[in-house]
Amino acid sequence: GDIAAGKEKSVTCVACHGQNGIAQIPMYPNLAGQKEQYLLQQLKAFKEGSRKNMVMSPMVQPLSEEDMKNLAAYYASLSPCDQ
Amino acid sequence: GDIAAGKEKSVTCVACHGQNGIAQIPMYPNLAGQKEQYLLQQLKAFKEGSRKNMVMSPMVQPLSEEDMKNLAAYYASLSPCDQ
Repeated sequence: GDIAAGKEKSVTCVACHGQNGIAQIPMYPNLAGQKEQYLLQQLKAFKEGSRKNMVMSPMVQPLSEEDMKNLAAYYASLSPCDQ
Repeated sequence: GDIAAGKEKSVTCVACHGQNGIAQIPMYPNLAGQKEQYLLQQLKAFKEGSRKNMVMSPMVQPLSEEDMKNLAAYYASLSPCDQ
């Protein structure tokens, strides 16, 4: 995926997952440095409905395959350390 | 949860999630430093079946509420940095 395009797309995600991919809210996961393939799988699962979440499911509906690949690449590229 | 008890319980988890909570296998998520509450929610979701995964679902069946709390505390306590 394209990291820069992913960063642009991540504007909506910041509210729950944090500016740097570390969630400020304890029930939302940190995404910084997570496995790219795992992130993409989860975005697709939410879109297809094989994984359900009241908050995430509507968030991913407008995303294209390209968007999801870019978002996965972007969050995987963030370091969970320099927080 | 109890971190030491979580560490003992995590022996089975190491195969996929890594010795230090950083998965060696790209499709499995890193757990080190993840949000404790999020981890507990996901373990419960796998146990209840509201989240389904062929590998994870059988893994969590034998876990008690206590085990799940301890595992969540243990993995949340690991730093994703000193890898």
